[in-house]
Formats: sequence, structure tokens, C-alpha cells
Amino acid sequence: MGPFCVESVLAEAINLVKAESMVLEQELRLESGRLLGPLTIAYETYGELNAERSNTILVTHAWTGDAHAAGRHSEEDRKPGWWDNMIGPGLVLDTDKYHVICSNVIGSCKGSTGPASINPQTGRAYRLNFPIVMVRDMVRAQKMMLDVMGINSLVTVIGGSMGAMQALEWGIHYPEMVRSIIPIAGTGRTSPMAIALNALARQAIYNDPLWKKGNYRPEHQPASGFALARAVGHISFLSEESMAMKFGRRFSARDGLFDFFGQFEVERYLEYNGNSFPARFDCNSFLYLAKALDLYDVAWDFAGMEEALERLSCPSLWFAFSSDWLYRPEQTEEVVEVLQQLNQPVEYHLIESDYGHDSFLVEPEKFIPYVVAFLDKLATVS
Amino acid sequence: MGPFCVESVLAEAINLVKAESMVLEQELRLESGRLLGPLTIAYETYGELNAERSNTILVTHAWTGDAHAAGRHSEEDRKPGWWDNMIGPGLVLDTDKYHVICSNVIGSCKGSTGPASINPQTGRAYRLNFPIVMVRDMVRAQKMMLDVMGINSLVTVIGGSMGAMQALEWGIHYPEMVRSIIPIAGTGRTSPMAIALNALARQAIYNDPLWKKGNYRPEHQPASGFALARAVGHISFLSEESMAMKFGRRFSARDGLFDFFGQFEVERYLEYNGNSFPARFDCNSFLYLAKALDLYDVAWDFAGMEEALERLSCPSLWFAFSSDWLYRPEQTEEVVEVLQQLNQPVEYHLIESDYGHDSFLVEPEKFIPYVVAFLDKLATVS
Repeated sequence: MGPFCVESVLAEAINLVKAESMVLEQELRLESGRLLGPLTIAYETYGELNAERSNTILVTHAWTGDAHAAGRHSEEDRKPGWWDNMIGPGLVLDTDKYHVICSNVIGSCKGSTGPASINPQTGRAYRLNFPIVMVRDMVRAQKMMLDVMGINSLVTVIGGSMGAMQALEWGIHYPEMVRSIIPIAGTGRTSPMAIALNALARQAIYNDPLWKKGNYRPEHQPASGFALARAVGHISFLSEESMAMKFGRRFSARDGLFDFFGQFEVERYLEYNGNSFPARFDCNSFLYLAKALDLYDVAWDFAGMEEALERLSCPSLWFAFSSDWLYRPEQTEEVVEVLQQLNQPVEYHLIESDYGHDSFLVEPEKFIPYVVAFLDKLATVS
Repeated sequence: MGPFCVESVLAEAINLVKAESMVLEQELRLESGRLLGPLTIAYETYGELNAERSNTILVTHAWTGDAHAAGRHSEEDRKPGWWDNMIGPGLVLDTDKYHVICSNVIGSCKGSTGPASINPQTGRAYRLNFPIVMVRDMVRAQKMMLDVMGINSLVTVIGGSMGAMQALEWGIHYPEMVRSIIPIAGTGRTSPMAIALNALARQAIYNDPLWKKGNYRPEHQPASGFALARAVGHISFLSEESMAMKFGRRFSARDGLFDFFGQFEVERYLEYNGNSFPARFDCNSFLYLAKALDLYDVAWDFAGMEEALERLSCPSLWFAFSSDWLYRPEQTEEVVEVLQQLNQPVEYHLIESDYGHDSFLVEPEKFIPYVVAFLDKLATVS
């Protein structure tokens, strides 16, 4: 066996990928009217762009996600990208066929410009001087990135949660460029319940004296408040069913039932997960992206949802999960019903899953067959 | 019109009531094995005890409730008791017929012994030296109070949420004394989701530097953390539907949409309500009662739920609310199904209401007719 063989096995099994980024010198005019730039955009690509430059799929990530959707950066990497079971040779987003791109949204802290980035005008981090970013602005920055790459046609835009919002915005604002969209566990507009939960998370951070109105030092994040904020999110991503399966009413083995500080397993889990979070995410970014989620309304700047959805002329494939209580199936169905009334090409599946909002990450096998069929049909048509 | 007339009108319209209390010198052995006493129990009564001492109804309150269930303490009182639309002459808990008692649970701060009370052994407030109290202990203290009053038969025990847990405990532990129970929006055992939400509330308080492990001065409660903890509870008592009706996605008129600290109406409401809470409740009591809720399991100290519910021989009337996501209808139905399998006399109604867990306070008119019929039938039988 020669070196070719070894390399080929590596490529398939380990799928080493490279974190890349580009700088966009042109300023972006945001929905708020403010200008932001120059912009750094972090991204990764999987598979090869074909000669016609027509086989790109854009994957859009959720709140605390990043551009690292698949593969590993090195053989030592403990974990692969967040949608590794979706992207790869022979998988649903088949890298033998498609050129898959995932980029980090602006406002985040995972390589793209966000509140922790240096403001070129002051030479210091933006912090709360960073402008409010809407989902539409994130999509606009992605469009600028694709322009630089010379890509002007997308097979599909696919993503869950905030990724679903981006997919929908793509379909509405760049109809000439998008051949389909696949929004998963999304919503046409964030509900007051979701806003209220984000309000708890915000307040948890504001209450932490270390937050200092966003002026914490990066190495001294407001860890207690931020951990609690994350725990709020964590609960909303899970479901009654998944918590019952995973923890039930089990009490921590090392605590006494009548100890004031004694904990149930579910409580210990939330605490542990919350505490590990500040090491890998910036608190101000978390707040800015929460704001983008709260402000999300597909009808923003339109007369109403109908007017916005009239522009979605490409086929769209929607999934909602039965146990998702953050963006409930009813919220996806609200959008789907309007699309049906408008006679737009729309396909919707309510997926039975016990994993709540997180189902799009935990049980992709439940919706993958529909995605495969959808992409196949799309290929036949075009 | 003589003075008699005036007095009679006053009694009916304003229904002035008196806050009372008693001291129980005998110590109570708690489920934890610890002794607590002497105990002060705050209570109120409405209507007259009949000669046979057989017309008493016990009303049990929820988490942050109190003994003041009906009427006003003075004509200047801005608000009547928390179930004023349920208790009074001609109302469902008819004070022309019944002698209604509501007492404050132990562990609370509304007149009964709790963590803010003086520990007679030290002459100082208990704070975190207060023992963990279970719902069963609360019921035991109520039994001691009724013993002192010479009451050994109850028409029914009725309450919502934590009040439903108390009603159920009454039916199981004092079957010889209880002729029926009416648990509303209850559960046979607190779910991991409810525990997780309480965990958020706890952590919000623990994170507040003013909490000082429970050693705050009463006039310096950990207000920020406590307000946030209350907001967590508040969200869990509401529903997606009630928030949509009440707030929708309205943005605060005085904030800019692109202000970092700009708020949606729902957020402002939660903040306002949370902030007003520390003035009327003790933070340590809040934590002790949250613990009692988390620990609640009807099967505690039994081989299982069946063994516990075998003891519930009296008729029971159960209500759950369609939009209650804290103690979901499925949780009441779990208990009801076991009772049906055991051939116990049980009646259950799933009430359509958009007000979530709080429906038992907001829309009593939806379940009152069933309570009237249930009490009438009970009177015929006995």
C-alpha cells in the first residue's frame, strides 16, 4: 500500500478540515442603519466546487454554533464539527457531489467579527459599542462572502433554529440565487415565550457584578451569571420527555435528600454544563445573538408575513419537532400555511422526537430521508 | 334602615375577615427526622362551624400563597384574598353552608413558622438552620391545628398547585378524617423540568452577593437575584398563549428597537413583577418551599404510587389545564389512571384554558360548576 492509499483512508475516516477566514473591506450597512466593517468572516468548506460553480450548499448555524460544521481540524480533535453526521462523502450533504460551506455569523465570537473583535476606529474591542445585528444582516454578510468566492447560485440553504431563520431570509432576499431552502426547527417570528426566556438569560448576566456592562476582561467573564444564562437556554432546548429519560427524579448520590444544597441529577447537569460554557463563548456575543433571535420576524420591513413570503418562490422543505417547546411546531406551521395559501412550492414534516428543540442535532436520522428525496428531486428538475 | 341593615350589607359586600394564629407547643417530627417546634400557625376562617363540627373545608395554598384566601382585613384593603371569587356566601365554597379554613404552610413567611422565624433554641432567626420541610410535614402541621380546634372531619381539602399536593397528602394520610379531596393543577411527583426551573431560580439567588448563604438582613434581601428567581417562576406559571394574548411581540414604546438595553413588553413586565416581589416575600422561605416542591412525590415512603394511592379511599375530583406546561395534564392523568385501575372513586376534568398553570386562579369559573356538583353529590351521600 502506497502513500496514496493512506491519504485516501485518512480523508474518508478522519476528514481533516481547515478553518479559513476572509476579510471584507467593504462596509456592510446594517438594518439599524449603522455601518460595520471591515468584516472578518470565518468559514469552512467541504467537498469541491464544480466547474459550473453550481453545486454549493450553504449550512447556517444556530445561536452558539460556529463555522466548524463537519470533520476535525487535527487527528487529535476530540470532537468533530456540530453536524458531522450530516456532511461528508455519501452522507445527506454529500461532499462527493456538493460543495458545502458553513460560515460563522457576524456578532458571534468564533472567528467572524463580533463584539469581542477590535473596532478599527478605536483600536479596542467593540463590546457594547458593537451595533445590533439582525438575522438579515448575518445573511447579507454571507452574501458578501459568496460574492468574493464567485458563487452566485446555491443548491440549498439549510440550518436549524437560528440557522432556519437565516435559510428563510436567504430565500426571501436572494430569490435569484437560491434554488431551495431547508429551515429546521425554525419560526417565522420569535414568540413572547422565547423572548421571555432570553430575558431571564440576559438578567442573569446583568446581575453578575463581573459583567460591568460588557466591559469585563476576556479572561474574567461574568462566569456565574453567564453559566446561569446558559442553563436557561439549555432547559429550553431540552424537553420534558428528554429530561425524564435522561435524569428522571434521581437525586445526586453524593448529596443527602434533606441537605439544603442537595441536588437532583438534572440540577447538577445544568450547573456543570453552564459552568463549562464561559470558557468557550463570549458573553457579549451571547447577548447580541440573543437580541438577534428576539428581533427575528420574517415580516420585518414588509407589510406582513404574506408580503414577505410571496418572495419565497423556490421550493422550501420545513421540519418541526413534536417536543420542541421553544419554537413550537405551530410556529413553523404558521409559515407553512401562508406559503400554501400563496401556492408556493412547500413541503413540511412534523417529526416525532423526544429531544425538544435540540432534535435537529440529536436525531437527524429522522428527517434525513426527506432531505435526500428533496435534493434528488431538485437535481432532476434543474 | 337601621344599623342591622348596614352591618349586613358590609358583611356581604366587603366580607371583613381576621388574620388569626395559634401556637402549637408540641414539637412536630418532620420526615427528615428533625424536630420542629413550638410552631406558630397563621390561619383564617370563613363561615361558621356547625354544631356537629362536620362542615369544615380546608383550603390549601400554593408556593407563595398565604392564609388570606378570601375577604379583606379592613375596608381600606386594596385587594381581597387570593381565592375571593371561590369563598363566600353563595359562592362555590359557600360560607352560608361551610366553615372554611385556610392556614399558612410551615416553611412560609406569612405568619407560620419558617426560616425567618426566631429559633427558640438560639433566640435568632433560623435562616438556613431551618429544617427541610416536605409537603407531608405541612399537612401534619395542619392536622395539629385542626386537633386543637376540635375538628376531626373535613368535607373536602381543596387547593391548586402545591395546594393540590397537600390535598392529596391529606387524602392518603388521614383517610378517616377526609370525606373528599379536590386537587387542582397538581402532580403526583414533580417533573425534572419543574425541578430544573426551580434550579434556575435557586441559582439566581445564590449568585446574588447579597444573599450571603441566607444570612441577609431582612431589610436587605438579595433583591436582584430574588427578582430573577421570581421571573423564572412567573414564566412557568404563564403559557405561550397567555403571553401571546397579553404582550405579543410588542416592543416597549420608550425604547429604540436597536438599543442594546431596549425591551419587549413581556420583558419589562417580568422585570417589574420580579422587582416588586422581594418586598412581600422572604427569600429563604421561597427557597425552602421550592425544595418542598422538588421533593414532592406521593410515593415517598411507599413501595410505589399504587401503594400510596390505595389509601385514597374517599372521592377525589381532579382538574388539569390544557396550557399548563409546569404541571402538565399528563402528570395529573398519571395519578388519575392509577386511581381508576385501583377502582377508587375518582373524577377528572381536563379544562381548556389559555392561562397555563395560573388558570386555577385566573379562570375558576371553568371548573367551579364541577366542584358545585361534586360537593352536592357528597352532601347527598353523607
